[in-house]
Amino acid sequence: MLTAGIITIGDEILIGQVVDTNSSYLSRALGTLGIKTERMVSIGDDARTIYDTLDAAIRDYDIVLTTGGLGPTKDDITKEVLRKLSGSEGYKEDKGQLAMVYEILHARGLDVLDSNKGQALVPDKAEVIVNKRGTAPIMVFRIENAAQKRQDSPAAVGSTLYALPGVPYEAIAALDDILNDIRAHYPLDHIQHKTVMTYGIAESALAQRIADWEDALPESVHLAYLPNPLTGVRLRLSAYGCDDPALLEDCMKGLRPLIKEYLYSEEDTDLPTVIGTLLKQKGLTMSAAESCTGGTISQMMTSVPGCSEYYLGSVTSYANSVKENVLGVSEEIIEQYGAVSSECVAQMAEGVRRLTGSDVSVATSGIAGPGGGTPDMPVGLVWIGVCTPFGTKTFRHIFKNDRARNIERFAAIALNHLRQEILAL
Amino acid sequence: MLTAGIITIGDEILIGQVVDTNSSYLSRALGTLGIKTERMVSIGDDARTIYDTLDAAIRDYDIVLTTGGLGPTKDDITKEVLRKLSGSEGYKEDKGQLAMVYEILHARGLDVLDSNKGQALVPDKAEVIVNKRGTAPIMVFRIENAAQKRQDSPAAVGSTLYALPGVPYEAIAALDDILNDIRAHYPLDHIQHKTVMTYGIAESALAQRIADWEDALPESVHLAYLPNPLTGVRLRLSAYGCDDPALLEDCMKGLRPLIKEYLYSEEDTDLPTVIGTLLKQKGLTMSAAESCTGGTISQMMTSVPGCSEYYLGSVTSYANSVKENVLGVSEEIIEQYGAVSSECVAQMAEGVRRLTGSDVSVATSGIAGPGGGTPDMPVGLVWIGVCTPFGTKTFRHIFKNDRARNIERFAAIALNHLRQEILAL
Repeated sequence: MLTAGIITIGDEILIGQVVDTNSSYLSRALGTLGIKTERMVSIGDDARTIYDTLDAAIRDYDIVLTTGGLGPTKDDITKEVLRKLSGSEGYKEDKGQLAMVYEILHARGLDVLDSNKGQALVPDKAEVIVNKRGTAPIMVFRIENAAQKRQDSPAAVGSTLYALPGVPYEAIAALDDILNDIRAHYPLDHIQHKTVMTYGIAESALAQRIADWEDALPESVHLAYLPNPLTGVRLRLSAYGCDDPALLEDCMKGLRPLIKEYLYSEEDTDLPTVIGTLLKQKGLTMSAAESCTGGTISQMMTSVPGCSEYYLGSVTSYANSVKENVLGVSEEIIEQYGAVSSECVAQMAEGVRRLTGSDVSVATSGIAGPGGGTPDMPVGLVWIGVCTPFGTKTFRHIFKNDRARNIERFAAIALNHLRQEILAL
Repeated sequence: MLTAGIITIGDEILIGQVVDTNSSYLSRALGTLGIKTERMVSIGDDARTIYDTLDAAIRDYDIVLTTGGLGPTKDDITKEVLRKLSGSEGYKEDKGQLAMVYEILHARGLDVLDSNKGQALVPDKAEVIVNKRGTAPIMVFRIENAAQKRQDSPAAVGSTLYALPGVPYEAIAALDDILNDIRAHYPLDHIQHKTVMTYGIAESALAQRIADWEDALPESVHLAYLPNPLTGVRLRLSAYGCDDPALLEDCMKGLRPLIKEYLYSEEDTDLPTVIGTLLKQKGLTMSAAESCTGGTISQMMTSVPGCSEYYLGSVTSYANSVKENVLGVSEEIIEQYGAVSSECVAQMAEGVRRLTGSDVSVATSGIAGPGGGTPDMPVGLVWIGVCTPFGTKTFRHIFKNDRARNIERFAAIALNHLRQEILAL
């Protein structure tokens, strides 16, 4: 199995100013090729540290990805380290990246300064993948003798170092070209993936439920659990060394009946996207009435491009006066049962459906915390209401997290109930 | 200056399943004591790798923080490595953590299994900081001879390794105890910090505006720029080797007049919290009408505990029918000027203020993208409306980002306009 090291260069990560999201993204992408990331490192803008860290990495791993350290003001440090490390004598100008520098700066109405042109200079021995979203090129260094130092390397071709820009928008855009370059230069195993999205079952319970099936998987098939509070547990099946699609489909045939009440997609997606697709298929519109989730359901639904086709809007009724005056929840219901009740969320869901004229609606009322809980109504309690042309249903759940996490869990479980009711229409 | 290394242990980070946010948080906290983080590393759950990485780190740095690798199912690997590394012969039971294990599991209605009790076992030479939010203790190892290997270490006391749990909620809760432990054992420079929050000016423009002031800062005072799309640019002034509060206040006297139209707090906070404080001081309530921001403003405002005191609610009027039927925007306005217009956001803000009975309100309508733009109304265009008892104002801005980033920018700039209008009341 090919191995990789990912190195992030830049003081801004090291002092905690910026959270490094590139490494996680790059590691997942390498994983789809069956390449195992063995180490992620963040270091500062210091030439000695950069040299030593890269030098060790190209000895230790087949693929080394670096991000950062290539801006117009500080590229000299990292680029000069790369020149030395690659045994390049000097620099050459890359015509492709230079053209892109002109194109990008002219589109922004800016003049091209010498410092900008300098971005297109790369060490002699670098190959270039043009950065289409920024001025710093992606540099590729093929280190032929590195592999000889690693006795167990499967790659007779040596190590390859890819130097990427630090801006995630630019690094991610270059990733397809990098994966293709790896495919072209390394003997990769055939590898197939299948992603299954589940909601409503914890990772440990899911593992227990599918344990027999998992134990019986062919040796070439690996299973990964990827839990997330907003999307549920994502299962990723990977088949190594086989390009017959029937293999994973056979595995899926055993899995589906075991998790059918939790499975919501066989693609890598999320609840708002799946609900949007369902609504479009059925020609329906939706709305939301939110109390404890405070706008999170609406924010999640509208994060999907094109949502205006089915998403009409929402009311965040944080105050009881808004529940009564805008959504039409009756004062008696709130007095008798409280705002966190089956009766209240039912009227909230019905109210917002009537108000917006949507086909279906979802409502939430709960206690996110940290304050406001009582023994009968603890922090973490939430009521969900779903209203469709066939009536209104309500659901009760209890979570035990902090405020931010409770709000996420409340919103996700509400969307899952909504999804299930839409499916049944 | 004391140095630190931060090591994250766990396959879930390395395969890209989870983004490591702990390292960034811990690095910022160490920075407040004047401790410089020199390296962050993520490694998998492999004993050999963990040993080698920790062994190198305690030679290289004064403070080593590890997170992860301590769950009830896999703690044996990391804990056993820590036993060997610290020269401990065996394990001892920590009474304080054992009591906490019982307390936490009983509160969840669970029995205490042997594997849970095992969490309270630590290597002989470990000191324990009780984890109040989880079952795995924070272990402290004082490595006395490590410092002798580092000629330039200012710490005669040697290195200290703190092993923290990986769950951010638990790791962050332990941080105060860890910082106090460092203060008690190391000769720290006197260090003072002052945080200033700005909104509405880019990092580069801010740097230019305050360049003369920055150049004239005393040598012992350092300035850091921490930009964030939701909070604006945070400036952090740090004074090393001085405990006289007059020093930073003197610096602030020069800074305030330069940035007075952008400065919104002299504490480390955010726009929703500052708006909440202002509303409480003035005894006012607020509401929001959101189109393009889709619930993000409401979600941000309700992320603040206790917001029910001043936040009444919002309407997300994604569809024009909701703008008209719920918020009372006139059909003629939308026909004549479009939904993304000064006229429309003014009526949205007035509508939601009337509907909820709030004192002030804010409204957004814009084009987040990726589709929907025209030459006159490009992706990134947003109109903001703010309505108070003294009337309605509208504001126009253009950003050039992707959908997710545009939505964040729209919401933040709307909150900043709302803040300014509340201040003027």
